[in-house]
Amino acid sequence: VPQRADVDPFAHIVGRDAIAELTSPQARLQAMLDVEAALAAAQATVGDIPPGAAEAIAEACRAERIDADELLAATELGGIPVIGLVEQLRDIVGGENATFVHRGSTSQDIFDTATMLITAGAASLTIESLGNVATLVDALGRDYGAAPMIARTLTQFALPTTFANVTGRWYSGLDEAIGALQATAGSLPVQLGGPVGDTSTYGPHAAEVTKRVAERLGLVVPKYPWSTMRTPIARIAGAWGVAATAVGDIATQVVALTISDVGELAERAPGAGGSSSMAHKQNPVAAIRARAAALQVPGLVATLLHAAGSQDFERASGPWHAEWPALNALFSATASAADWLRLSLERIEVDTRRMAANLETANKERTT
Amino acid sequence: VPQRADVDPFAHIVGRDAIAELTSPQARLQAMLDVEAALAAAQATVGDIPPGAAEAIAEACRAERIDADELLAATELGGIPVIGLVEQLRDIVGGENATFVHRGSTSQDIFDTATMLITAGAASLTIESLGNVATLVDALGRDYGAAPMIARTLTQFALPTTFANVTGRWYSGLDEAIGALQATAGSLPVQLGGPVGDTSTYGPHAAEVTKRVAERLGLVVPKYPWSTMRTPIARIAGAWGVAATAVGDIATQVVALTISDVGELAERAPGAGGSSSMAHKQNPVAAIRARAAALQVPGLVATLLHAAGSQDFERASGPWHAEWPALNALFSATASAADWLRLSLERIEVDTRRMAANLETANKERTT
Amino acid sequence: VPQRADVDPFAHIVGRDAIAELTSPQARLQAMLDVEAALAAAQATVGDIPPGAAEAIAEACRAERIDADELLAATELGGIPVIGLVEQLRDIVGGENATFVHRGSTSQDIFDTATMLITAGAASLTIESLGNVATLVDALGRDYGAAPMIARTLTQFALPTTFANVTGRWYSGLDEAIGALQATAGSLPVQLGGPVGDTSTYGPHAAEVTKRVAERLGLVVPKYPWSTMRTPIARIAGAWGVAATAVGDIATQVVALTISDVGELAERAPGAGGSSSMAHKQNPVAAIRARAAALQVPGLVATLLHAAGSQDFERASGPWHAEWPALNALFSATASAADWLRLSLERIEVDTRRMAANLETANKERTT
Amino acid sequence: VPQRADVDPFAHIVGRDAIAELTSPQARLQAMLDVEAALAAAQATVGDIPPGAAEAIAEACRAERIDADELLAATELGGIPVIGLVEQLRDIVGGENATFVHRGSTSQDIFDTATMLITAGAASLTIESLGNVATLVDALGRDYGAAPMIARTLTQFALPTTFANVTGRWYSGLDEAIGALQATAGSLPVQLGGPVGDTSTYGPHAAEVTKRVAERLGLVVPKYPWSTMRTPIARIAGAWGVAATAVGDIATQVVALTISDVGELAERAPGAGGSSSMAHKQNPVAAIRARAAALQVPGLVATLLHAAGSQDFERASGPWHAEWPALNALFSATASAADWLRLSLERIEVDTRRMAANLETANKERTT
Repeated sequence: VPQRADVDPFAHIVGRDAIAELTSPQARLQAMLDVEAALAAAQATVGDIPPGAAEAIAEACRAERIDADELLAATELGGIPVIGLVEQLRDIVGGENATFVHRGSTSQDIFDTATMLITAGAASLTIESLGNVATLVDALGRDYGAAPMIARTLTQFALPTTFANVTGRWYSGLDEAIGALQATAGSLPVQLGGPVGDTSTYGPHAAEVTKRVAERLGLVVPKYPWSTMRTPIARIAGAWGVAATAVGDIATQVVALTISDVGELAERAPGAGGSSSMAHKQNPVAAIRARAAALQVPGLVATLLHAAGSQDFERASGPWHAEWPALNALFSATASAADWLRLSLERIEVDTRRMAANLETANKERTT
Repeated sequence: VPQRADVDPFAHIVGRDAIAELTSPQARLQAMLDVEAALAAAQATVGDIPPGAAEAIAEACRAERIDADELLAATELGGIPVIGLVEQLRDIVGGENATFVHRGSTSQDIFDTATMLITAGAASLTIESLGNVATLVDALGRDYGAAPMIARTLTQFALPTTFANVTGRWYSGLDEAIGALQATAGSLPVQLGGPVGDTSTYGPHAAEVTKRVAERLGLVVPKYPWSTMRTPIARIAGAWGVAATAVGDIATQVVALTISDVGELAERAPGAGGSSSMAHKQNPVAAIRARAAALQVPGLVATLLHAAGSQDFERASGPWHAEWPALNALFSATASAADWLRLSLERIEVDTRRMAANLETANKERTT
Repeated sequence: VPQRADVDPFAHIVGRDAIAELTSPQARLQAMLDVEAALAAAQATVGDIPPGAAEAIAEACRAERIDADELLAATELGGIPVIGLVEQLRDIVGGENATFVHRGSTSQDIFDTATMLITAGAASLTIESLGNVATLVDALGRDYGAAPMIARTLTQFALPTTFANVTGRWYSGLDEAIGALQATAGSLPVQLGGPVGDTSTYGPHAAEVTKRVAERLGLVVPKYPWSTMRTPIARIAGAWGVAATAVGDIATQVVALTISDVGELAERAPGAGGSSSMAHKQNPVAAIRARAAALQVPGLVATLLHAAGSQDFERASGPWHAEWPALNALFSATASAADWLRLSLERIEVDTRRMAANLETANKERTT
Repeated sequence: VPQRADVDPFAHIVGRDAIAELTSPQARLQAMLDVEAALAAAQATVGDIPPGAAEAIAEACRAERIDADELLAATELGGIPVIGLVEQLRDIVGGENATFVHRGSTSQDIFDTATMLITAGAASLTIESLGNVATLVDALGRDYGAAPMIARTLTQFALPTTFANVTGRWYSGLDEAIGALQATAGSLPVQLGGPVGDTSTYGPHAAEVTKRVAERLGLVVPKYPWSTMRTPIARIAGAWGVAATAVGDIATQVVALTISDVGELAERAPGAGGSSSMAHKQNPVAAIRARAAALQVPGLVATLLHAAGSQDFERASGPWHAEWPALNALFSATASAADWLRLSLERIEVDTRRMAANLETANKERTT
């Protein structure tokens, strides 16, 4: 059972099973195995290894066949899980076929490409949540968009508007967030550079193998292996930053409109949002948790950009490894933020009478 | 004469005049005036204001006609320069036409749209520098790409490769950086929402006016005014993050290859890179300053994302204002990083004999 | 068995059991229970609740008596674990004593004070690792400090020095890091403000109760409840930043001195640091992982400062909750960095002959 | 006239002259000259150089005697201003005494020690502003502390309290912020390591010279030169983070209490806080600008920690240089935030009738 820092009962939550599974050790393990299998399959197609070897490798590339404790011990020694994984894989495949495992490859190729698979999964999960949020926003706009309300700028009553102004900008932000994730998810590059990033160890069919691995895994072929040119990581960080911005703004504005003195929105759900000391309260806990999760993102983006832009020689001595936990946390926080926001909007109650009353108060103030 | 924190003699820069000018108070002022003029022109075209008013406004919208001290005083009172600017503009235009200045508009529309103009200029400047770097990398690849060298992974001698492996990945990163800036620069949205972001104050021709202002200024029409849905800011932050990553990686790798013990690259320029205490040294100062400038970017991206994703109500009470200095610093640091890197590669000397010698040493080590 | 993002086989490691335990859901749960018990004990001492109630509450405050699934469900509804925890606690205590559970208290008091207990544990664990590193550095200085070597500044051979110059500055950094953690750990404030932070619900003995709870838990009494004045969180972030800086600099310098071309240091351990593709390599994986872990810290500090400095009203609507996962990740990353560095220095081999050879090379270069 | 990015009319600031002056090129130049003079004076006292030389050097160490254009040109070549500065200084001193300028020293010693002088000035300026804020908060507490009001937690009406609860926590935060800055300002270390950080070039009196330079400049003697052990920079970053947290929380809470629907606080000043489109508004612009300035700090702290914890060999190849603009921006943003907050509290109006009315509303809600 995957259980992770950011989805434990005292930290995050909601939609936790999917998010936890996505970035779990098991998911990472299977993603690496998928890359090894795809590589073998591609190499078989171009005649670099026997077809039977590729089949045997595919058969072996199942997470449940790997001894996790052994892998953990090997990871501590090697600093990266691929070395121990390849050893186990060769043992499982056995015989002559074992020599065709990880042919011409290197830890970074397997690990980076697996990271792209996990990124694709994170994008998909987050896009789904954002889509659900957009559907809810759309419905709010249809149901309550015509309601007159007072706009507030720089905290002060400004001019009359309608609730459609709120849902309109929320929708546009979700649209842009989904677009940013889709654009990135649709251009995630495979990594097949070999030990020093020049593809030479993959032999004369390197380009063809790369193309086929990319196709098989739903990735694209980069202009050049990106072993120490981490613009793909920066692009991911940027796209997730856009998604977290949309969620953050909506959650901030939900929270602002639920302030008791404003009272134009409220989260209503049986048993939710109570207080350990004040029974009368109705806290907008889902919007609050969405904000809290979205607030993790800027710092993680900074970590990723720092790591991505400091890579030395042909494989970086620290900055590369630094990307891993930050990406996991980025995916988890953003997906959680989106899903908490979905929950908030499912619970939301629009108080159009309060909107009208506040508008009247504001109009009086403006004319005196 | 513009003089800025990050371009002072004790902080940054090469190419300082262009970068300093770009984000100078004067440039910001002129950009705001350009937006006012474009708005008036568009409103005249659709018949919202008289053509003569638009002409008078255009004539008035020149930075040198604005009293900077008065504007500064007004900015301290209003917290934003637009209020005082509009007052001065109305005085300059005078007469009946004065009433057509800033028609239906609001501070945020002028300021945000001006920011997009400055962003476009920053993109252009940085793309030019990155293009120059790419040209230099391309030339290095042609001249020295065939040179054999030892690759280093996780700091250790790995396998033989050629210098083309270095220039190949550098070029691909620059290509991606330029692409990211171009994509963003080509989709910068105009902001015309009016005081509360619903475009109502621009009247029945709001959509048409928006379209024409966007065309005139080289911007695009957003799906909805983004007053408090700051995904456009997040997208800018992301694109500049990609650019800084490419520059950072190249600069880091230049620096690594200049380490005296490695010695495969050196910056050579008469009088440059000396030491106040050690006359024999040849420090790769341009690459070092490129790294230093690129290192500013992740923190600034975090600031921008935090601000962009925390915007309240219809105009944010702090997070909006927080974007301004961070964007200026982001543009300045990234453009500086790119231009320092250009200077570094202009000075670079590739020592193919040293590469060959190091490769030989490495080969001996591998076979013993 | 605690298992966390940053200690899974594919992310972090070393010393994982202690670190994982520290920030695990179980540890957080027990810390909250310890606060409830200390509060009851203090209240009994001043006569606010019967002594028997305090004893019954203490007896109930054991993590293993809490139903985790039920608590998780309640946490999703309430957005914070304390509400469900108090309910279960009252059920366990039962009878009339149940009414004395959480007397006058509020979720934030329990949660914040528990966070201080966890912070104290994290400080202690990290200080221990840093102390181990300091002992190793001291030994290196004694054993190899007299070895002549060439110093390198801005990547270039500079002037001769000895290895004691390296160990001297490392030791001073560790000393400062330990000092920063100790100073912070020794001034962690209890939080007892009650529902709105003014201590009124604790009644006339509030000050005395606060003092006794602080004593019992090894914390200090703050000048005022810090419900939405989060300078204590900022101080923690700052101290951990100092610790990560010392570790980061040492790890960076270990890595630099292991570059094959430099070769003055190496990590040597049977089976460690190998490559999946290049059998001859000896990667300094422990130092690399130390760098990677330390690189997580600046972004997390930014997240904490952003959250800490944006707290609204009497309990913050998102920024407070945002502190939780960031603190956990901060403690875990810093403790991991320190422990990886300990492992690196345990494995370190100082090559004084190589130092002498490099010095000779450098001297030749300087005199030609 | 100093003019800087963050103090231009379109970006920041109140109190701009003092802050701009503090981090201006001129101030940095004079600080470096002060260090050169203090070094010469100390060296004369211990007999390392003739007393007359120290006097001549002191006489020469005045910023107005330095040719800024020449220095700028030299800085571009050398990457750091000290080299060109020492050359000019030697020319100004002239004759035999010129050889005693910068005796045994190095760029980093001068630059780092000058940075500590600027840091001390920034601390002093910011402490003064925070002290002014504390005085204003204290007065607010005396004048209005007894006023009953409703507390709000997680945006919802919670329990009655008084305004003293607000001013009490504000005061405690300011107290802690001032304490953090004072503690750091009182322990800023001199840097005198010589070219490679081992003090050897300062000769047998190095320790004595260091002690005297520190005394003369109001700094402390570090345990070891910190050329590439940047815990002092991390400590500064941490202390400023505490200051920005206190300011940020107070500004956030001022802003929240000015929301038109809440209306318990307002900024009132003739001509301030108006709108370019809505004449009736009274925006809390000073509190808003305080928030905006404080929001710059976390990202800058992250930049500083990243740079501080990545320093290579005996002088870092980029991370050192990266500290400079980030420190300038940190000092400027924090001092500005504190001073905008002072202005906000000078303008603040406490509406105790509105507090009473809101409390009544809340009480009705709680009992129905």
